[in-house]
Amino acid sequence: MKTVKIGLYGFGVVGQGVYEVLRKTRNAHAEIVKICVRSLDKVRKVEVPADLLTDQENEILENPEINLIVEVIDDAEASYRIVKGALERGISVVSANKAMLANHLPELIELQHKTGAALLYDASSCGSIPVIRNLEEYYDNDLLLEVKGILNGSSNYILSRVFDHQCPYEEALRQAQELGFAESDPSFDIEGFDALFKLVIITMHALGEYVAPERIFTYGISTIHDSDICYAREKSVKIKLVAQVVKVSDEHFTMFVMPEFVTPKKYIYSVDDEYNGVVIRGECYDRQFMFGKGAGSLPTASSILSDIMARLHDYRYEYKKSRFVDRPTYTTDILLRIYARYTTTPVPEILPFEKIYEQYYSAESNYLIGDVKLSELIAHREELRDKDLFLANIPQFFLNRD
Amino acid sequence: MKTVKIGLYGFGVVGQGVYEVLRKTRNAHAEIVKICVRSLDKVRKVEVPADLLTDQENEILENPEINLIVEVIDDAEASYRIVKGALERGISVVSANKAMLANHLPELIELQHKTGAALLYDASSCGSIPVIRNLEEYYDNDLLLEVKGILNGSSNYILSRVFDHQCPYEEALRQAQELGFAESDPSFDIEGFDALFKLVIITMHALGEYVAPERIFTYGISTIHDSDICYAREKSVKIKLVAQVVKVSDEHFTMFVMPEFVTPKKYIYSVDDEYNGVVIRGECYDRQFMFGKGAGSLPTASSILSDIMARLHDYRYEYKKSRFVDRPTYTTDILLRIYARYTTTPVPEILPFEKIYEQYYSAESNYLIGDVKLSELIAHREELRDKDLFLANIPQFFLNRD
Repeated sequence: MKTVKIGLYGFGVVGQGVYEVLRKTRNAHAEIVKICVRSLDKVRKVEVPADLLTDQENEILENPEINLIVEVIDDAEASYRIVKGALERGISVVSANKAMLANHLPELIELQHKTGAALLYDASSCGSIPVIRNLEEYYDNDLLLEVKGILNGSSNYILSRVFDHQCPYEEALRQAQELGFAESDPSFDIEGFDALFKLVIITMHALGEYVAPERIFTYGISTIHDSDICYAREKSVKIKLVAQVVKVSDEHFTMFVMPEFVTPKKYIYSVDDEYNGVVIRGECYDRQFMFGKGAGSLPTASSILSDIMARLHDYRYEYKKSRFVDRPTYTTDILLRIYARYTTTPVPEILPFEKIYEQYYSAESNYLIGDVKLSELIAHREELRDKDLFLANIPQFFLNRD
Repeated sequence: MKTVKIGLYGFGVVGQGVYEVLRKTRNAHAEIVKICVRSLDKVRKVEVPADLLTDQENEILENPEINLIVEVIDDAEASYRIVKGALERGISVVSANKAMLANHLPELIELQHKTGAALLYDASSCGSIPVIRNLEEYYDNDLLLEVKGILNGSSNYILSRVFDHQCPYEEALRQAQELGFAESDPSFDIEGFDALFKLVIITMHALGEYVAPERIFTYGISTIHDSDICYAREKSVKIKLVAQVVKVSDEHFTMFVMPEFVTPKKYIYSVDDEYNGVVIRGECYDRQFMFGKGAGSLPTASSILSDIMARLHDYRYEYKKSRFVDRPTYTTDILLRIYARYTTTPVPEILPFEKIYEQYYSAESNYLIGDVKLSELIAHREELRDKDLFLANIPQFFLNRD
C-alpha cells in the first residue's frame, strides 16, 4: 500500500493538531517527514524530534521523498507562495488557509489542471464539518438552491454570550480571545471576513462559480449595541452572523455575509457558542443541516486527516459544476429587507430605500426597517462602516427558508 | 462525456421520484432506458411513454445498452435476485433496499470484488442524509467512536405526535400511515427493523464490520403505553427510537436498536416528526450532527441521483475499513441501564438484573430501573416481546454522549 509522506508547513495550533491526530490513527498510512517552522527555538506544547524541524521553506519543496504538502500557516501570502510553488512542481497540497484560497482559487484551479497535482482544502471551511466534500461529491448536481450558515465560530460565540448569557459585548469578545476562538486580529472574525472567505470557497463547490471577495457585501457584528439586542429580544429572534449563497432564479444567484434576525424555527437558531452549522437546500431533497465544531486544533486537524487519506486514493476535486450548462450567474440586483440602527450617520439619506416599514427616532438612537437593493449596500459600504450604526438582514424574501 | 444509461426496477413512490428528479436536472448525463414494473396496466401518477415500460425482469439485465441498474422495488427477495444477477453480469447497481442489503452485504461485497461491478446504496440509510458516503469517504479513518441516531422517520413521527401533540398512540400510527410515512406493514417501522437494517449497513461503513441483523438486539415502540409517556414527561425527557453503534473499548464495539430516554441537551432530542438525525462521534472531531428528510419520494430519489452521478466518475465503495488493522469486534457483553414497564410478564424474574435502582408496583402497572447485560436481553428477547411490557434504554453508560 502507498504511503503518504508529508511535508508540514506550520506548527501552531492546527499543525500540532495534525501531528497529534496522525499519531492517534493506526491506519492512516501517512507520515510526517519534515516540518517547516518560522523559528526553530520556540518552545511548543507538542514535542517533536529536532531533526524533523526546519526553518528553510525549500527544504520541503525540494525533498523528493515528500509526496504531499500540508500547509497550515497563518500568513496568507506565505501560504500562497508555498501552495503555488508546490503545485507548480507537481506536488499535491492540503491547505486550510481560507483567506489565501478565497483570493487565489481560479489560479490554483488552473494550476491543478495544468500540472496534475491536487489541492484539497475541506478544513478551510467549517473545520470538522465536511461541507466542501459533500458539495463537491454528494450534491454534485444542479438541484442545489442555497447554502446558508454560521461559518465563524468566534463571532457566534460572542453573540451566544450576549444573547443567552446577558454578557456585555466587550466582555464576550475578551472571553472568545482568551478561549482561543478568536483570531489574533479579531476584526477578521467580527467584521465577517472569515465567513466571507469560507463563503467564496463554498460557492465554488456549490454552484461552480467563483466570485471575488471584494465583490461581496460583508458586514460584521463589531458595532452591535444594547438597543439592537433589546430590539431582537422583543421580537423573540436572535441575531446571528450569517453567510449565504442563494439561487434567486434559474439565471441568478446572490451572496452576502451579514447579521440576520433568526427566528426560533430555523435550524441555525440553535447553533450556539463556537459551533458552526450549515443548511444545504435543494430541489427534491429540501434541507440538510450539518452541525459541528467549526474550529479548534483537533477538529480542524481531523478534517485535514480526511484530506490526507483521500490522497491515498488519489482523490481530487473535479470542479464538475463549473462545466455545467446553464449555470446561474452572480447578481446584486436583489431587494433585501434590513434593520438599520444609527445615531448620527444619516442612513435614510445614504441608502435609497424602496420602501420603509418602520421608522423610530429618539434622543439616543434611531432605527428603521426598509427594503434596499444589495447593490446599494455595496455601493455605499464605506459610509456604512461608521461606528454608530448597525445593520441586520430580515429574511423576508426567504420566508420559510433556512 | 460518458452517459449513464439506466435500467430502473420499480416504479412506485421512489421510482417515480427518480424519474422526476432526472427530468429536473440538466447536468446529470443520465437517462432512463427501460423501467421494469410488476404490472403494465397500473395507473400511475407520473406518466411515461409506454415503450419505456416492461414487465420482463430480464429485458433490463440483457440489454447491452444499459450500464447502470437502479433498483427501488419493495420486495427484498426480488431485489436480491436482481442485484446479484446484475453484479454477476458485471453491471453496476444503485439500490435502496435496506432489508436486502442488511442481509446480503458480505456476499454482495464479495461479488463486487470478483466482477468489478459497483454497488452503491446511500439512499438505503436515512434518505437524503449522506451518511454512508461520509462514513466511507470523509470519516475513512479509525478515529470514529460512535454513530447514533434516529433512522426511522415513521416511528419518530408517531413518537413526536404522542410527545409534542398529546396524540394517542393508535391515532398517531394511523396518521403516519395516511401520510405515507409508515411502510405498508407498519411492524417494519415500529418494531425497529427498518432502523436495524440501516444500522447494519452503517456499521459496515463506520467500523468495517458486518454484523448479521439477527445478532442485534432490536426493540420497537409498539407496546408503548400512556404510563411510559407520563414517566418520561415527569423526568423531562422524550422517548425516541434510537439505533446506535458504539466503540466501548479499543477492542470492542456494541450495537442495538431500542427506545431511549433522550434529555433536552442531546442533538437528537430536537429531531421531530418524520425527520432523521445522525450523530457521528470520533476522537478529535467530537460530534457531527446531520439532519434531514430520511424518507419520501423526492428526498430518497435525490440521494439515488447522487449515486447515479457518482457512477459517471466510476465511484465505488472501497470498504477500506474492513482492511484496517486492530479492528474492534462486536460484543454484547456490556451493561445497559434500562427502564422496564410491565403488568403480568415477570420481568424481574426473566432478566438477571445486576442492580436495581427503582422498583414500583401498582394495581395497573409496574416498572423498574436496573442494570442488565445486553447479552441477556438478546437471550430473552422472545419473552420480552409480550404486549404488556415496554423497555427503554437509559444512557447512563454514555454520559455526556450523543
